Amino acid sequence: MAQEYTVGIDLGGTKILAAVIDPAGQVLGRAKKKTRGELGQWAIAERIVRTAREAIKLAGVDAERITALGIGAPGPIDSTTGIITEAPNLGFKNMNMKDYLERALGITSFVMNDVNVGTWGEYKMGAGHGASSCLGVFVGTGIGSGIVIDGKLYEGAGHVAGEIGHMCLNPEGPKCGCGRAGCLEAYASRTAITREIWTALNKGTKSSPIQNPGKKDGQIRSGRLKEAYDKGDKLVTRVIHHAAEYLGIGLASAASLLNPETIVLGGGVMTAMGAPYLDIVRDAMKAHAFASTFNSTRLVAATLGDDAGVLGAALLARQYLHEFAALERSRS
Amino acid sequence: MAQEYTVGIDLGGTKILAAVIDPAGQVLGRAKKKTRGELGQWAIAERIVRTAREAIKLAGVDAERITALGIGAPGPIDSTTGIITEAPNLGFKNMNMKDYLERALGITSFVMNDVNVGTWGEYKMGAGHGASSCLGVFVGTGIGSGIVIDGKLYEGAGHVAGEIGHMCLNPEGPKCGCGRAGCLEAYASRTAITREIWTALNKGTKSSPIQNPGKKDGQIRSGRLKEAYDKGDKLVTRVIHHAAEYLGIGLASAASLLNPETIVLGGGVMTAMGAPYLDIVRDAMKAHAFASTFNSTRLVAATLGDDAGVLGAALLARQYLHEFAALERSRS
Repeated sequence: MAQEYTVGIDLGGTKILAAVIDPAGQVLGRAKKKTRGELGQWAIAERIVRTAREAIKLAGVDAERITALGIGAPGPIDSTTGIITEAPNLGFKNMNMKDYLERALGITSFVMNDVNVGTWGEYKMGAGHGASSCLGVFVGTGIGSGIVIDGKLYEGAGHVAGEIGHMCLNPEGPKCGCGRAGCLEAYASRTAITREIWTALNKGTKSSPIQNPGKKDGQIRSGRLKEAYDKGDKLVTRVIHHAAEYLGIGLASAASLLNPETIVLGGGVMTAMGAPYLDIVRDAMKAHAFASTFNSTRLVAATLGDDAGVLGAALLARQYLHEFAALERSRS
Repeated sequence: MAQEYTVGIDLGGTKILAAVIDPAGQVLGRAKKKTRGELGQWAIAERIVRTAREAIKLAGVDAERITALGIGAPGPIDSTTGIITEAPNLGFKNMNMKDYLERALGITSFVMNDVNVGTWGEYKMGAGHGASSCLGVFVGTGIGSGIVIDGKLYEGAGHVAGEIGHMCLNPEGPKCGCGRAGCLEAYASRTAITREIWTALNKGTKSSPIQNPGKKDGQIRSGRLKEAYDKGDKLVTRVIHHAAEYLGIGLASAASLLNPETIVLGGGVMTAMGAPYLDIVRDAMKAHAFASTFNSTRLVAATLGDDAGVLGAALLARQYLHEFAALERSRS
């Protein structure tokens, strides 16, 4: 087989990333654009196509030798049809992304869940490399996870496995965005951290580094949290510690059930907060799991950062292409 | 290959069950003895051997055509060496059960976790049959689970996956036998149910059906709980409902992470309480999971009862024997 190149795309709420990789997983070309969710699904799809074209051009690769494109997208996705069922932030509603990309670019495309794609990236080329089983957990606005078992992405019977953010840590706990109470996400996501800080500020607690929401939706960026934390701000420190502890409890529960060889922790909050945060998470995980579980499940920080999504999308698309080809051969 | 027969043994806290099965999984002979944990590990091992011999004799099968023996045992087990590391109820401490059985019976033996074995039985011949992924959950004195994915038992990196009973449902919840707080087991096991009932009785709550612990360790048998429930006893009804609700929350968390096609619910409490209990568990699971998760994960009652253990042990032993044979062939 001739050299095979693959395109990976990471469709996020704020930016679109694209990369072209060679068979060894080396990035040959990259491109980036703002998502501009307010423009609606068709304009965003067009921006994705332009980002992909730019990356392909920069890679200097003959377009005919690109065998597959993978895109990681938020929200429920029907991976067999490539339809993004719903992604409210981006105005997507039953959007056939696979069809759109294949028509526009002429490349076989796979539409996948963004968290699964990030997990696959970390598993193939990052902190989860070589693990017999790997749970990738990403902490940002929400908390999601992906599962790899025996070298395969495990998606569950309804393709909705990995909803670690909605494991219940207390049925009488704080209200979650999903409408239920006490989900891990309601304790440990950036949304929960922000809510705790605003609540305290509104009650009169002082915090010099954080006074102004800065963003319309009230989210505090992970970088700002880190600044306040590094300055020793009492409020932010307390809230971050509380969130990290609950994350550790959630990971302990997940490890009790799944006992994966590696848990890779990534996402904006983890990346910004770094080692001190990871230590608190690990201590809480240790306190809430059997020693036999804790000692056989390694908790590590993600190493690929933003690259996890594009690399994972490209590598998973290539994997699926080969699996489908093998299936076709076995049928003929 | 000639007809292959297999022995399955279920080592429980109160009884030892043995069965000999033919290649179709039909039981040809059975035997049963009391465990008599107070006698210590060597006496129990001897009783296991006698139970197995009795089942083999009743099966009327030529002993040389029995290719494998599987035993499901409680407590942490090193399945590679066949050593039962610890089983306090039975006085086992680093007991090499594999070695003992192979010497005594001359049959290749596999020592496995009792919950994994029960799950495998339900997956191969019971309520989990045909599922692409299956979580077997057993509710008795404790709560344990086994996981089958893609036709294989999934044991986790340290062979300790499936500890669903120690997923945390509230870090400030009731004390668990494991020393931590708010584990599923501390809400929904028979031990927790018993504790709630004793606490209420000690506070003066009236319950005509239940007055006398009956057993030294204070456990109330599942059958007695069912009797009291059927008589409409207010205390027992309230406690059972509460336990069933928390079990449903725990199953919702497990399904959120794992999204198995089938959850098989078994064990003494489930078997005794039956459909009304299962309905409460299912309603709580529905209330605490996404619709997409709940709709793609089927919750069903176990159908094999006590046979799940012996059948699962025999069938899993046969599976392992074949896997090892294939591995040997591939090496030579």
